[in-house]
Amino acid sequence: MDRPRHQGMAKNTNLRWRLPLVCLLWEVAMIVLFGVFVRFGAEADAHWEEEKREMNLTSDMENDFYFRYPCSCTVVAALGSPWTSALGTSPTQAGVKQQQCLRAALVTELTDPPLCIAFQDVHVMIFVGFGFLMTFLKRYGFGAVGFNFLLAAFGIQWALLMQGWFHSFKDGKILIGVENLINADFCVGSVCIAFGAILGKTSPIQLLVMTLFQVTLFSVNEYILLNLLHVKDAGGSMTIHTFGAYFGLTVTRVLYRPNLEQSKDKQGSVYHSDLFAMIGTLYLWMYWPSFNSAISDHGDAQHRSAINTYCSLAACVLTTMAFSSMLQKKGKLDMVHIQNATLAGGVAVGTSAEMMLTPYGSLIVGSISGIVSTLGYVYFTPFLESRLHIQDTCGIHNLHAMPGLIGGIVGAITAAAATEDVYGKEGFIKAFDFTGVYQRRTPSIQGGFQAAGIVVSLLMAFAGGAIVGAILKLPVWGDAAAEKCFEDDIYWERGGGHEMA
Amino acid sequence: MDRPRHQGMAKNTNLRWRLPLVCLLWEVAMIVLFGVFVRFGAEADAHWEEEKREMNLTSDMENDFYFRYPCSCTVVAALGSPWTSALGTSPTQAGVKQQQCLRAALVTELTDPPLCIAFQDVHVMIFVGFGFLMTFLKRYGFGAVGFNFLLAAFGIQWALLMQGWFHSFKDGKILIGVENLINADFCVGSVCIAFGAILGKTSPIQLLVMTLFQVTLFSVNEYILLNLLHVKDAGGSMTIHTFGAYFGLTVTRVLYRPNLEQSKDKQGSVYHSDLFAMIGTLYLWMYWPSFNSAISDHGDAQHRSAINTYCSLAACVLTTMAFSSMLQKKGKLDMVHIQNATLAGGVAVGTSAEMMLTPYGSLIVGSISGIVSTLGYVYFTPFLESRLHIQDTCGIHNLHAMPGLIGGIVGAITAAAATEDVYGKEGFIKAFDFTGVYQRRTPSIQGGFQAAGIVVSLLMAFAGGAIVGAILKLPVWGDAAAEKCFEDDIYWERGGGHEMA
Amino acid sequence: MDRPRHQGMAKNTNLRWRLPLVCLLWEVAMIVLFGVFVRFGAEADAHWEEEKREMNLTSDMENDFYFRYPCSCTVVAALGSPWTSALGTSPTQAGVKQQQCLRAALVTELTDPPLCIAFQDVHVMIFVGFGFLMTFLKRYGFGAVGFNFLLAAFGIQWALLMQGWFHSFKDGKILIGVENLINADFCVGSVCIAFGAILGKTSPIQLLVMTLFQVTLFSVNEYILLNLLHVKDAGGSMTIHTFGAYFGLTVTRVLYRPNLEQSKDKQGSVYHSDLFAMIGTLYLWMYWPSFNSAISDHGDAQHRSAINTYCSLAACVLTTMAFSSMLQKKGKLDMVHIQNATLAGGVAVGTSAEMMLTPYGSLIVGSISGIVSTLGYVYFTPFLESRLHIQDTCGIHNLHAMPGLIGGIVGAITAAAATEDVYGKEGFIKAFDFTGVYQRRTPSIQGGFQAAGIVVSLLMAFAGGAIVGAILKLPVWGDAAAEKCFEDDIYWERGGGHEMA
Repeated sequence: MDRPRHQGMAKNTNLRWRLPLVCLLWEVAMIVLFGVFVRFGAEADAHWEEEKREMNLTSDMENDFYFRYPCSCTVVAALGSPWTSALGTSPTQAGVKQQQCLRAALVTELTDPPLCIAFQDVHVMIFVGFGFLMTFLKRYGFGAVGFNFLLAAFGIQWALLMQGWFHSFKDGKILIGVENLINADFCVGSVCIAFGAILGKTSPIQLLVMTLFQVTLFSVNEYILLNLLHVKDAGGSMTIHTFGAYFGLTVTRVLYRPNLEQSKDKQGSVYHSDLFAMIGTLYLWMYWPSFNSAISDHGDAQHRSAINTYCSLAACVLTTMAFSSMLQKKGKLDMVHIQNATLAGGVAVGTSAEMMLTPYGSLIVGSISGIVSTLGYVYFTPFLESRLHIQDTCGIHNLHAMPGLIGGIVGAITAAAATEDVYGKEGFIKAFDFTGVYQRRTPSIQGGFQAAGIVVSLLMAFAGGAIVGAILKLPVWGDAAAEKCFEDDIYWERGGGHEMA
Repeated sequence: MDRPRHQGMAKNTNLRWRLPLVCLLWEVAMIVLFGVFVRFGAEADAHWEEEKREMNLTSDMENDFYFRYPCSCTVVAALGSPWTSALGTSPTQAGVKQQQCLRAALVTELTDPPLCIAFQDVHVMIFVGFGFLMTFLKRYGFGAVGFNFLLAAFGIQWALLMQGWFHSFKDGKILIGVENLINADFCVGSVCIAFGAILGKTSPIQLLVMTLFQVTLFSVNEYILLNLLHVKDAGGSMTIHTFGAYFGLTVTRVLYRPNLEQSKDKQGSVYHSDLFAMIGTLYLWMYWPSFNSAISDHGDAQHRSAINTYCSLAACVLTTMAFSSMLQKKGKLDMVHIQNATLAGGVAVGTSAEMMLTPYGSLIVGSISGIVSTLGYVYFTPFLESRLHIQDTCGIHNLHAMPGLIGGIVGAITAAAATEDVYGKEGFIKAFDFTGVYQRRTPSIQGGFQAAGIVVSLLMAFAGGAIVGAILKLPVWGDAAAEKCFEDDIYWERGGGHEMA
Repeated sequence: MDRPRHQGMAKNTNLRWRLPLVCLLWEVAMIVLFGVFVRFGAEADAHWEEEKREMNLTSDMENDFYFRYPCSCTVVAALGSPWTSALGTSPTQAGVKQQQCLRAALVTELTDPPLCIAFQDVHVMIFVGFGFLMTFLKRYGFGAVGFNFLLAAFGIQWALLMQGWFHSFKDGKILIGVENLINADFCVGSVCIAFGAILGKTSPIQLLVMTLFQVTLFSVNEYILLNLLHVKDAGGSMTIHTFGAYFGLTVTRVLYRPNLEQSKDKQGSVYHSDLFAMIGTLYLWMYWPSFNSAISDHGDAQHRSAINTYCSLAACVLTTMAFSSMLQKKGKLDMVHIQNATLAGGVAVGTSAEMMLTPYGSLIVGSISGIVSTLGYVYFTPFLESRLHIQDTCGIHNLHAMPGLIGGIVGAITAAAATEDVYGKEGFIKAFDFTGVYQRRTPSIQGGFQAAGIVVSLLMAFAGGAIVGAILKLPVWGDAAAEKCFEDDIYWERGGGHEMA
């Protein structure tokens, strides 16, 4: 299985008909499926105005309230129709309660970032962040940013459908709004992570095929974790990073190329390519607080996520620099570590950022993840390649897999250690959404479910990665021979200049 | 007319006194005109506090309401003074209606992105997006990003005045707020587009002169379309893209240089310059949903614009990749297509994004525009140059002109096909603003006016471009000889390194 | 004193143990101090829900109101408990007033950008803006962006503590929210400025030591200005730019290296490095309106800041281009000027942007600062180096020091010239916060205090810079010999390619 079946000059990398065929097929499928299933959500539909006034306005307001504050539903429901006369005139006892409710909603809203900001920030992370982070290879800049663009553009369409069927399906239609766009970007994030492992070794067709399957599996895994296990994972330590990274690592293991040292000289970076990659690093680093808080509950949880992530990332930079220097015999810093390990802090608080991790807890988690990630680049990546035959181009094992596991574990511990004392009685219920059928969950049970979430994500990643890897091994996708890897010339028409130096 | 009158080594490109003179003259004029005309709008004036409480608060609130929700004016007016007692105590029938109105306003606001976000996004598109998109030339990176910076910085000042006189002029003063800044950026966007056609062939003085005239003409054209024809064009398919592109193409036709093949070697890109250009591409692509929704009506229209644009752009990437590969005999992708044609989807839904185009409709429009734009780069651009003597450096005909026309036509069709069934009775009126003197407009009449908007934009662009082109042909502006085109050395002091490779 | 004590090949630049030691020491200290002092602010704490409903809701709302609108406190307090029955039912005279107050608050909020946007914009300016602005050197790109990343990541943690002790300390704890994150970024901005003066000549350890001291001094200086002198300085002309720049210039004077011409060839830029620097320039330029308005009073002041800054920056671009061309004998533009002097307009309105400077006033200030800054690059920088032995790598004297002084002076004049006529009676009080113990301040007295703020900032900068410079001169920090300056090879492991060209 380790011996590549199709190698050498004989490989046909001319994609003239295959790539257009797959692209157009995928796109036509999207159009048909969107035509059948996707409609504007209430907020984006032109009937909005009408509904607001022709329907019973009161109940519409309630709907909207539920729509925007799903987590507060129970509280609100318990109060009766809070919006009914909240702005109204009946000074009954009920009225007073309702006014309080309205006020609370207003205050929450007034201190909240609108979703659209988080959306644009996450969007930048997917397209510029991941795209440029991978431009570090000296001759693969076009492939890094261009193929990332291609797979993300397809992935968000397919994710809108897949996630829509699981989460926004009503009366045979998927109703989409801005929150769906954010979730689609999240889903595609896991594909971008997996792309990091196979960067430079696959054809764009393989990437499109992988995206199709990975988005599907991601949505299933996400549904199991969030809806069946009732796990909290706002920043996606488990659903995005652990799943995405181990999926990608399994795929690259199946696609193992024994002769890859033939293109060893092209696996390095040059001066410029490292600076381009720093654009990606910085945009990921700066907007990570938005990433981890984008789909948190409104209000305090969102603030907390942003602050925890910010603290963790800041600490991570210092420990990364420290270990990068310490592990090189002349004490010099290594750009690979600065570009990647500085981001591990964001991954490692993905699950727990919205919990009461506290700022110093975040500093500790960030510090540890920076150290682990840097050690990974120095010691673990060579080991994975030589012993386990896992060729991990971008080192996603160090940036996403290990910190993702740390994130999942920290999340489980933080959840298990939660007390009403720390969160407050209502804050506690709200933070973990211990309502309805989950009313009787205790923190330690929740911690157990969180741990189960890690295991499920890993199993899905290994099984899915093995199957998809096997599919990608079929000799029809136009991937290049080992000596042609990490080289833009195969798939890109180039004007001039042969490398970045 | 095709024979250039001033060519060869004799051309004087030393701008030492001319460029400073024009810059300072322009800037002094701005200071004087701003001094005479421009004042802070109510929202930005320190009297705000005072007005709020010393004036009759009720009517002030109404003013503010009108200010922020201009499109809902009629609805609100019909209700009487909605804010008067909306929060108040009189439970009369009128009071109930007013409360409903207040609630609707609050809900609208709570689900809305503030203007300032859209402002910063559009700002990034103009300065980084357009600036870096044009850095693809191997020796013209400074000119691309630097001259774009210069013309945009001047253009926004002049646009604040021009658009102010048309739209925000009251008692002899232009009252400016954040919405004016967005509109100024939009206006300058059309100049950046035209700049793409003449990139590398003109002096900065010519660009400043062109900006002066084009901003003026843009404002007149916009006034005709939006105010006289009552056309909808939130994303500017007609006002920005069609007008800007055909204006620029006419100018470059008038400035035709028969000997331009002398600098043919400099018209290509190198590896790095293509990566810099991808920064521009990605920022334009990512923020385009903000661009198309920035000045849409608040609420559902804004959400709809963002979702439609997002879908159209995603589809466009796939069809562009498909055709880019298909049209090259070895099936390789061409960076020029990826950098440009992937954006055509945003242009092509500029008019219709805020209408009920539906997500799958957007996918179809985006798919088609990606195909048309890529075909344009392969077949149409060489034809334009060899037969029509239109030298279009950046291929704006493919990225802005054709998709802009598609956008205008799709907008006209979507408007003509609008029914109360799809929009809801009130949504219908709100979406097309069929109030006041436009109360009797039907969708098919609106469709006709939309089509008329395309024609007017084209006529303005051809006529204006011809006149401005003739002015720019005068032998006093310091443009370079044909063999010196696409070369930063003429206008820029260079430290070292002669090209990007 | 001018003779460097430690020079030549003997210098030990191997940081293998020193850099990790300092990084880890700093980070452990942060963890301990955060553990002892830092807690989530009310908005980010999980008790939020509970507090909102279990406490007396009314007074909680008032607290929140004070929290978010600190400047309106007096007005609100004067009205009694505005929120008590603002949404309520008692149509008493008091009730009417309270409703007015609520409405005013709502309107203010509805027209405001949430803090989180300003936060992300400022974050981008610090990490991408300053980081890439300094990549212009041909062989120091890694150091520019990497060390900026390091010092800023440490600086924000330390600033959260220092500024927290001065401004958010309550019952032995620092309560942090998003506004603290913005202020930390601001504080670090002054360190990034100082870094510009010593760019390429110091080791990362020296930078960490400098950051430690400069953040401390910044916080003291800021406390003196804002709290003791009651000075207005929303955009930090004095606290950030004047202080940061003169601090950095003093440090570089103390660290004077007489043999620096040995690395003269490395002090220039190459084609690409100038384009990378333009990324920094444009992000600083575009987001500067957010910078100057981020911590302005909500409402009109914030709008005014953004508009004034936008106008000033636009004008600055034109005068910079004019003088850049005029001062070169062939009339060519110089990238150094375009990268830096175009930003002077943002610095120069830092103090006065939130005042009634008016748009044309901003154009004038921006125009002048562009001219002064460009003249500085051409005439003043060489003079400083040859006569005063101040080696200013990035020319921060031209970009931050002089425009910062202009900003302070313009602010003092604008404050002194303020009249109730221009601001309105209440706007006047609100704009300068003439309440409580400052009730009797007149504009001319305020102008005097503003001027005193400039003097205090200068004194703190000179004294602090001298002390810190002396500390950095100790022969233990691993800085490089003169001939090794401006060279990434000393501190960075490099894959390949020796410079940017």
